[in-house]
Amino acid sequence: MKAKKTGSKIYKGKGKQAGLAPGSLFYTGERKTENVKITLIEFNEKEFEEKEVKSIEECFEDKYANEIKWINIDGLHEIDTVEKIGSHYNIHPLVLEDILSVGQRPKLENYDDYLYIVFRMFALEGALHEINSEQISLILGKNFVITFQERSTGLFNSIIERLRNGQNKIRKLGPDYLTYTLIDMVVDNYFVVLEKLGEPIENLEDNLISNPKPENLQNIHHLKREMIMLRKSVWPMRELLSNLYRDESKLVKKSTEVFLRDVYDHTIQIIDTIETYRDMISGMLDTYLSSVSNKMNEVMKVLTIIATIFIPLTFIAGVYGMNFHHMPELSWKWFYPDFFWILILVIAVSMLIYFKRKKWI
Amino acid sequence: MKAKKTGSKIYKGKGKQAGLAPGSLFYTGERKTENVKITLIEFNEKEFEEKEVKSIEECFEDKYANEIKWINIDGLHEIDTVEKIGSHYNIHPLVLEDILSVGQRPKLENYDDYLYIVFRMFALEGALHEINSEQISLILGKNFVITFQERSTGLFNSIIERLRNGQNKIRKLGPDYLTYTLIDMVVDNYFVVLEKLGEPIENLEDNLISNPKPENLQNIHHLKREMIMLRKSVWPMRELLSNLYRDESKLVKKSTEVFLRDVYDHTIQIIDTIETYRDMISGMLDTYLSSVSNKMNEVMKVLTIIATIFIPLTFIAGVYGMNFHHMPELSWKWFYPDFFWILILVIAVSMLIYFKRKKWI
Amino acid sequence: MKAKKTGSKIYKGKGKQAGLAPGSLFYTGERKTENVKITLIEFNEKEFEEKEVKSIEECFEDKYANEIKWINIDGLHEIDTVEKIGSHYNIHPLVLEDILSVGQRPKLENYDDYLYIVFRMFALEGALHEINSEQISLILGKNFVITFQERSTGLFNSIIERLRNGQNKIRKLGPDYLTYTLIDMVVDNYFVVLEKLGEPIENLEDNLISNPKPENLQNIHHLKREMIMLRKSVWPMRELLSNLYRDESKLVKKSTEVFLRDVYDHTIQIIDTIETYRDMISGMLDTYLSSVSNKMNEVMKVLTIIATIFIPLTFIAGVYGMNFHHMPELSWKWFYPDFFWILILVIAVSMLIYFKRKKWI
Amino acid sequence: MKAKKTGSKIYKGKGKQAGLAPGSLFYTGERKTENVKITLIEFNEKEFEEKEVKSIEECFEDKYANEIKWINIDGLHEIDTVEKIGSHYNIHPLVLEDILSVGQRPKLENYDDYLYIVFRMFALEGALHEINSEQISLILGKNFVITFQERSTGLFNSIIERLRNGQNKIRKLGPDYLTYTLIDMVVDNYFVVLEKLGEPIENLEDNLISNPKPENLQNIHHLKREMIMLRKSVWPMRELLSNLYRDESKLVKKSTEVFLRDVYDHTIQIIDTIETYRDMISGMLDTYLSSVSNKMNEVMKVLTIIATIFIPLTFIAGVYGMNFHHMPELSWKWFYPDFFWILILVIAVSMLIYFKRKKWI
Amino acid sequence: MKAKKTGSKIYKGKGKQAGLAPGSLFYTGERKTENVKITLIEFNEKEFEEKEVKSIEECFEDKYANEIKWINIDGLHEIDTVEKIGSHYNIHPLVLEDILSVGQRPKLENYDDYLYIVFRMFALEGALHEINSEQISLILGKNFVITFQERSTGLFNSIIERLRNGQNKIRKLGPDYLTYTLIDMVVDNYFVVLEKLGEPIENLEDNLISNPKPENLQNIHHLKREMIMLRKSVWPMRELLSNLYRDESKLVKKSTEVFLRDVYDHTIQIIDTIETYRDMISGMLDTYLSSVSNKMNEVMKVLTIIATIFIPLTFIAGVYGMNFHHMPELSWKWFYPDFFWILILVIAVSMLIYFKRKKWI
Repeated sequence: MKAKKTGSKIYKGKGKQAGLAPGSLFYTGERKTENVKITLIEFNEKEFEEKEVKSIEECFEDKYANEIKWINIDGLHEIDTVEKIGSHYNIHPLVLEDILSVGQRPKLENYDDYLYIVFRMFALEGALHEINSEQISLILGKNFVITFQERSTGLFNSIIERLRNGQNKIRKLGPDYLTYTLIDMVVDNYFVVLEKLGEPIENLEDNLISNPKPENLQNIHHLKREMIMLRKSVWPMRELLSNLYRDESKLVKKSTEVFLRDVYDHTIQIIDTIETYRDMISGMLDTYLSSVSNKMNEVMKVLTIIATIFIPLTFIAGVYGMNFHHMPELSWKWFYPDFFWILILVIAVSMLIYFKRKKWI
Repeated sequence: MKAKKTGSKIYKGKGKQAGLAPGSLFYTGERKTENVKITLIEFNEKEFEEKEVKSIEECFEDKYANEIKWINIDGLHEIDTVEKIGSHYNIHPLVLEDILSVGQRPKLENYDDYLYIVFRMFALEGALHEINSEQISLILGKNFVITFQERSTGLFNSIIERLRNGQNKIRKLGPDYLTYTLIDMVVDNYFVVLEKLGEPIENLEDNLISNPKPENLQNIHHLKREMIMLRKSVWPMRELLSNLYRDESKLVKKSTEVFLRDVYDHTIQIIDTIETYRDMISGMLDTYLSSVSNKMNEVMKVLTIIATIFIPLTFIAGVYGMNFHHMPELSWKWFYPDFFWILILVIAVSMLIYFKRKKWI
Repeated sequence: MKAKKTGSKIYKGKGKQAGLAPGSLFYTGERKTENVKITLIEFNEKEFEEKEVKSIEECFEDKYANEIKWINIDGLHEIDTVEKIGSHYNIHPLVLEDILSVGQRPKLENYDDYLYIVFRMFALEGALHEINSEQISLILGKNFVITFQERSTGLFNSIIERLRNGQNKIRKLGPDYLTYTLIDMVVDNYFVVLEKLGEPIENLEDNLISNPKPENLQNIHHLKREMIMLRKSVWPMRELLSNLYRDESKLVKKSTEVFLRDVYDHTIQIIDTIETYRDMISGMLDTYLSSVSNKMNEVMKVLTIIATIFIPLTFIAGVYGMNFHHMPELSWKWFYPDFFWILILVIAVSMLIYFKRKKWI
Repeated sequence: MKAKKTGSKIYKGKGKQAGLAPGSLFYTGERKTENVKITLIEFNEKEFEEKEVKSIEECFEDKYANEIKWINIDGLHEIDTVEKIGSHYNIHPLVLEDILSVGQRPKLENYDDYLYIVFRMFALEGALHEINSEQISLILGKNFVITFQERSTGLFNSIIERLRNGQNKIRKLGPDYLTYTLIDMVVDNYFVVLEKLGEPIENLEDNLISNPKPENLQNIHHLKREMIMLRKSVWPMRELLSNLYRDESKLVKKSTEVFLRDVYDHTIQIIDTIETYRDMISGMLDTYLSSVSNKMNEVMKVLTIIATIFIPLTFIAGVYGMNFHHMPELSWKWFYPDFFWILILVIAVSMLIYFKRKKWI
Repeated sequence: MKAKKTGSKIYKGKGKQAGLAPGSLFYTGERKTENVKITLIEFNEKEFEEKEVKSIEECFEDKYANEIKWINIDGLHEIDTVEKIGSHYNIHPLVLEDILSVGQRPKLENYDDYLYIVFRMFALEGALHEINSEQISLILGKNFVITFQERSTGLFNSIIERLRNGQNKIRKLGPDYLTYTLIDMVVDNYFVVLEKLGEPIENLEDNLISNPKPENLQNIHHLKREMIMLRKSVWPMRELLSNLYRDESKLVKKSTEVFLRDVYDHTIQIIDTIETYRDMISGMLDTYLSSVSNKMNEVMKVLTIIATIFIPLTFIAGVYGMNFHHMPELSWKWFYPDFFWILILVIAVSMLIYFKRKKWI
């Protein structure tokens, strides 16, 4: 068993399995669900049945002629289940290992008899819009699709609904089209996540100008890191889809390719949006730093101007506080109450005018 | 129906359709025009007729022999119209979906019997030169061209005029040449938009040096983002055109390819200009920050110099304000009115000279 | 006629022709010369004649056997001339349009019977070394070369001289070798321009350290923009040459290819130099900002130190200026003239020593 | 003998051998181990023997039929041993030279009869998590694997254990699968190193905000440099593995390729993590600089505000310390103890309110 | 004759020859050596002779059967010599021109009968470790090698020594292996130069933290520029070597290719080191700027704190310096010598405590 993770919060695995023999299976994630839930969906163009099964063996027999089978596993901590699927469908041990190592980068592996596809789903959590990323593995065989999720997310419910509702494309077009709808659902979900992330980005931008605070910097870095994380999952997704629709696999029909190219276009659009967000966030860093220094400049300027005006005045007051015996001004009657204050005013006002002209105030 | 948008203002769609079945049609934009306007233009080398029709079915019959038909739809909120075109001309459902999802990235899709081309038109709005981007879809068939716009823009009026005026290339050279003139019109429009944007950029640049204000920073970021947006539409446009003239599609004649290469060259020129603007705008950020800090430095320097000169002088005044019984200077007759002021002057002037020599003032 | 320009000063065209029909010809530049000057040069290995002709028709007949003809047009505002060349030599309308649109990006177009090459020439103008860029178009046919310049520059005079002087390679090796010498001349000219630009760059660098001024920032941005402009013309030039010597055009002889590769190497060298200059200019921005802040720091430091020393001293003077009836120090005879000044000196000197030790002064 | 190193601490060699003839062998590293330790492991599907041998000649004979031989050399300072292996297995002199030059960049060289693979192992040392990098060379022949390490690290112990334990894949699948397990072990080790590095990065990040210190900057640069160093070793590792599984070498069986692709995927994951760390570290530089300036701003602001409030007050006190004979206020009874202090308070409080409103305090 | 240089100090040529006819030869460098020194080395597997000849004609006859001839020219100002070699060995005029234009970018040109290779050698000069770059040209023919250097450097002496010493590879393996040893010698020299540059880089780094000075900035830019210069020579060197070992030239034997790949690997290692240095130098700029601002902050902080403490105290002293007739405090006996100083102390100490708590001091 092997572990491929990083110690950062970005990938979820733990390093302790590093160095063990390849081949033994080991779940690297947290146990996110109480029980493993196995859903078996069997259908052909005319029939449809969905049931929750207790043991994976119940899934291995066909009920209908020309049946297409979709097995969905929610929860990966029962290694036994994964192993049985592996031996029944003759899946390569490395694929089983990858299914259980939940820090995979999206990828497509073509094993002739089946395709192994792994990709990631996102969910936003909490007030900070923390992105939570989960791994979804998919095995596409001649007449079956098996999906593995870390926990029950309900993401695919609407697809099951469509299947149940009868005579539509998914029922007719085979497991590759089913695979397409599943991937399409996940990619559509990316749009939703991105849209939700648009809100804190725009809020932050407004705050930056009116009232820049050190916390904003944290937020900017938080958003930046989330964008990096999204990008790291979507870029390989794009590659995966490009391979999937260009690949000459006999498992993907010609007619499905045009649909896959469509999802591929969507991932490019998502990448475009992520890049736009990244540019906005970079600009926000500039704005923040400039707002902070602007505010500081304003403070310093006004305060320094006050100080500067009073310093010469204080000097003048100091001069007439001197105790020289011979200071003729001291005895001039008109000096203090009139001339002195006029002098003070003239100095202060002319300094203010000078500052005004220089556009310093 | 599916939606591909982002929550930012950059793409226009709304996220609420994410997750619905692919295939059902749904207009993702705002309703920008009261009624959908369908214009039918039929021509061959000798004949020409242009008419506005109420219902799309009126367009489906040919009037002339060897007729070329151009159907232009302004306004996309009548899904019915799009569906009828789709079923008459046998257009793939994903294309119909893309026509109605008005946040598409420019692209070319080759469906053998027809080409689907989608690109974007820009218009500047308001004093801030907000870029408004609209989607134009084009279907090029064997003897027809169908264009879909979000609203009546009048962009293609001059082409209709040229068609009406008779014996010119467009009448002779078939629907692919017509497609070229339409794309060329849109690309020419990019030059106009870029030229108009050149003005606020140059104005801003002048302002930055004479009078840097925090608003300028906003403007810089606004312009930067507009450039990013333009770039995101023009880069795929370039790719689209490159595919169009290199593609071995039987719908594009050899003689038209050289014209398409010419438009392709224009998009490269546009990209060049956008990059130049981007460089200018980046430089403006440097200039702004440096201007602000320069002005601040100037303020601080002059004010600090004034303070520095008066502080030692105030100390001297303070000394002779002390009440010691034994201060011989106090009774020296010549001290106050003459020597004191001379001392003050000497100190002040020598400090000024020192500052001058150091080039601080 | 179409216009492709940008509104910035970088390309010279005007946007007003955007939207007109492709095919009609229109000169997009300024009229830089009074009259169009047509020079006809006819030569073969043995004969040579150069003459200035009034009307382009005089150029269309051959004088010698195996003649090579070089027609040079200075000034592009007589569209008639260009049209006649086009119809005589059967040139594609888009080429004629490009010849007259003087904001072209350097490119090579292969029309089987002839090659169309467009590139740019630079000249430095004024004290600021403003780069002035002009378009040169060249048509290389089986036995003729036609060059179009915006005005008489004399750039090719030395080549005409070499042709006149007799038995050298240009006379022998055909129109492709003549084309090579023309391009080589232009590329050599780039070296001259770069060398001249080296001077203000080095001057600026020296100024930055000794006496940084806000104007320097303007100069840095000016130089940076000129480098961007040069780069934008030289990069496609490199591509053009690479295509020219790799292209399998029957118009370029094998023996000429090695010469073209040599000019290609020169453009790489020029790009290298431009990149080096760009790096230098980027470094200058750092140096400038750092010099400015350094100078400011120096001012602030010295001034603040002066203020800091005198503030505690002023406090002491203030204390003994208080009017308390019971201040025993006031009546101590030795206090004022001796102890007071000693105290002041001790405080001032110890502060100076402290600052010195901290390496603040 | 040749030396390829750099004088920096990043590569370990010394420059003094530069310029000597290629071919003579020379160990460029430090002597990290007392004695060279040679371990001979011989096995086939049924048998297994491991022994430490004194002299390399003992390794050259086969004990079992269909034997696979793994020779591991710990310590490279006995050039003799390397030379004997070279002449027995007919290894190219440049390979021997590379084995002894311990600053190699990871690479794969295909010499038809054998593959030469060189890569690097990392260990963290000391409190600062200094990355220590060592070179591992591997020669994969038809039925043997030879590994060269700079010292005994125990890295491969668990693989020897698995070999000894019997009927598993490594015993069955030949020397190419053994090579895979060795490389896989090293790559797994990278995950461990990265995970350990995650800790100081997160610690540093927390420190930066609460208490930024100049030492942090050193740490940031230290971590940045370590990331650069890791990256420089892992990028070519990725290339190496990509070549290894795509290469048509007859030494690598088809069935092993899928395993190699798996390690390849791991290196991509490692690169991803390194890039994420690099982004985090870049962000930390921003955070540090902004924290420092933030703290400074806070200091300056509060201090300047105090000064600013007292300067006008001091001026007022100065005014009434003047010695004019005619200062009517001086004799007003209510002036000093009441009005004066009220005036002072009003001025101070209104300034505080003004500052508060402006959000300066 | 043509000149390709830049006016900067990076390339050495002079611009004045631009515009002259290609073909005439002209030395663009400085005359670095008094006399041109021609060394003729003739050898086959058994014989060897080295002699200095006066005139190049002496080199054109073979002395031994199966002789390999190596002609080394130190000093390029005798154009005559180069021309005679050109006409004897039938070298293309452009090659002769490139040999004499000493600002060439490293490149390989394949003229079927011979290969022309040009590369650069570095030497460090003076205390500042100025990089001095010289051009070495090499012509590899069927049974001869001709090298051209700007002056006698002694770089190849050890190779001559190895040739003289007898039965080694160079004597046996032909002119292509000799070419390899020459290039290898130059590349090894790069390692030495890089190692020497490592020292000032590390010194500078230490200085930056302890005592940042404006000169450091100059040094950083100086080092940065040297790295750019090295990089510009080594990158094309890598390309050159890649072409050399992949090229299907009949002049390079299969057995030599593996050696060339080895030198190629070395250039990659050199590029790696240069990139590492560049990263270090970039980091140094950050460190410098941050050190400077750190030191300035420290100064400002301490000084401002002193000022801030004394300003309120001075105000208090000012209050009791007022001359109001009714100031009851003035006559309280205990006020001055005790209470006043206690008040002053309490204010000063509580401010210090506040600053301490805020971690400002």
